[in-house]
Amino acid sequence: MMEERIIIERGSLNRLGSYLKEYNPKKVGIVTDSNVGRLYLAGAVKALEENGFSVFTHVIEPGDLSKNIDNYNLILCELSKEGFTRKDILIALGGGVTGDLTGFVAGCFMRGIPYVQVPTTLLSMVDSSIGGKTGINLKTGKNLAGLFHFPLFTLMDPSVLKTLPENTYREGLSEVVKYGIIKEHEMLKLVKDYKEKEDEIIKRSASIKTLIVSRDAFEKDERMLLNFGHTVGHALEALSGYSISHGDSVALGMVIEAEGLYNLGLTDYNAGPLIRDTLRTLGFSLKTDTLDKKSLYKFIESDKKRAGDGITLIVPQSPGVCRLEKVTMDTVKKLLV
Amino acid sequence: MMEERIIIERGSLNRLGSYLKEYNPKKVGIVTDSNVGRLYLAGAVKALEENGFSVFTHVIEPGDLSKNIDNYNLILCELSKEGFTRKDILIALGGGVTGDLTGFVAGCFMRGIPYVQVPTTLLSMVDSSIGGKTGINLKTGKNLAGLFHFPLFTLMDPSVLKTLPENTYREGLSEVVKYGIIKEHEMLKLVKDYKEKEDEIIKRSASIKTLIVSRDAFEKDERMLLNFGHTVGHALEALSGYSISHGDSVALGMVIEAEGLYNLGLTDYNAGPLIRDTLRTLGFSLKTDTLDKKSLYKFIESDKKRAGDGITLIVPQSPGVCRLEKVTMDTVKKLLV
Repeated sequence: MMEERIIIERGSLNRLGSYLKEYNPKKVGIVTDSNVGRLYLAGAVKALEENGFSVFTHVIEPGDLSKNIDNYNLILCELSKEGFTRKDILIALGGGVTGDLTGFVAGCFMRGIPYVQVPTTLLSMVDSSIGGKTGINLKTGKNLAGLFHFPLFTLMDPSVLKTLPENTYREGLSEVVKYGIIKEHEMLKLVKDYKEKEDEIIKRSASIKTLIVSRDAFEKDERMLLNFGHTVGHALEALSGYSISHGDSVALGMVIEAEGLYNLGLTDYNAGPLIRDTLRTLGFSLKTDTLDKKSLYKFIESDKKRAGDGITLIVPQSPGVCRLEKVTMDTVKKLLV
Repeated sequence: MMEERIIIERGSLNRLGSYLKEYNPKKVGIVTDSNVGRLYLAGAVKALEENGFSVFTHVIEPGDLSKNIDNYNLILCELSKEGFTRKDILIALGGGVTGDLTGFVAGCFMRGIPYVQVPTTLLSMVDSSIGGKTGINLKTGKNLAGLFHFPLFTLMDPSVLKTLPENTYREGLSEVVKYGIIKEHEMLKLVKDYKEKEDEIIKRSASIKTLIVSRDAFEKDERMLLNFGHTVGHALEALSGYSISHGDSVALGMVIEAEGLYNLGLTDYNAGPLIRDTLRTLGFSLKTDTLDKKSLYKFIESDKKRAGDGITLIVPQSPGVCRLEKVTMDTVKKLLV
């Protein structure tokens, strides 16, 4: 059983250097994007230099397009020019894009060097920085190249979230709602007070994800629960050309999946209305007027062909409990149309 | 303890399909170079198609330059276009370059798909196809990006060696001599009869390497024994701009390291003359007239700076027994000059 070390403390970004000390690297490299860099890079560098580390920094453009092969190659080359070895450490300072790219570089440089996740968005704190998934997009699709590469530790400083734009913040909330459906029903109450209960939400979300991953790192069974809302969500996101955010797509995906599964009689538990109400309260618009369910179905069908066999849906059974169910494409069609 | 499955059988290339059957892939992708492809690709495809597999092939240019980021990206993209998933299998049909590139692609595609090594050179049979090291060169240096990714199995068909050019064949012999020094002294006798004892040499070499790797996959201690002759050998190879082959460089590296360590009194066992005689018999020229030992030292010194601390040499102690010894750069200087 894989245990991830996660530190959640306000102000901990300033103590990054002392947390790194026990791992005794010679050099430390920070990868961040220009938005996060403008706010937090100088502080992070200071926190490291104060502890005697030599610090290298690399700044990428914000946004998912930065998760590409050129940046991957560029950072790998820079690390070698800077004389990095397997004893040195990379730090991903930023959201999911920075974390995925940096973790993948770390996993491949000299066949793997250690890295640390310092997530700076709610989504990366409650979800993407945990679980060891790293990777980049290829010209042919998203997240097609990557690795399972677990960080030495993940350091979360919730105080950085105060600078996060509202819509970016909300991206994390839909994953918190997901944890309420698949694991701890109480999260649905807690999430409504997200302004007051921010630290508690992060702690409990991180521990839910950590527990699930620790039992099934390589996504053979239990980890698939995390895909609730994501089958439809991914299709929505892709069909919109990624103009609908991941958070908004997953939010709507959860509603559509839960309502559809109940309507089809695949579960007696009608989770749809609760999910919908909670998300509305949190400011999600859940617009369905432009929804083209036929295209959605076609997208999922072509995705399913790729996967080689049936599709597994996550079925809400009772508050905080879901089961995995392999369904035919015919069921998916009925669920959507 | 990691166990690698290795099949060594004449004619087994024709039975590739039946060996794959138990892993039940939907699709199979073969990566090979144009030299090997011309001789063996059609047969390999036939052996797979006869067993009902849908086969995708990708042919690279022969030579170390093909181990680059562009080929890595290209094959990854092609796999996704072809609809490969984690249930499908890649095959590396060729020497070390093909094996390293293909294994790395397999390790990264969709966070890792299985692959099979089908080495077609003596060097890759006795050495590089075993042990899970994969990777590519970066603009900034050799083998700087990669992974430890072990194949499902390695299939060696010694009958393909009959088409190998003499100098390519000899590249493998220097690694066999190395096994004689670091592990099984008898290999030094056996290797002289390499034409008659080819299968036995491959079997015993593969089992020596497998055993060492199984005890120390990530090169913490015992696996470093495999570096005998390689500290000086790598420097020779790099300084020649890779015009001296890996095999010839390691051959000379073993002689220089063994003689130097004995002359410095770091060992009572004078392995140098035996290594030199054996290699001469095998056709290695061991030319040292153009050897610039100062440049060699400088190269190793700059390499050492990269590694962050002392250099570990492999010291022959008695027939078939070596020890690891961390030495200062001053010792390396004396050893060379």
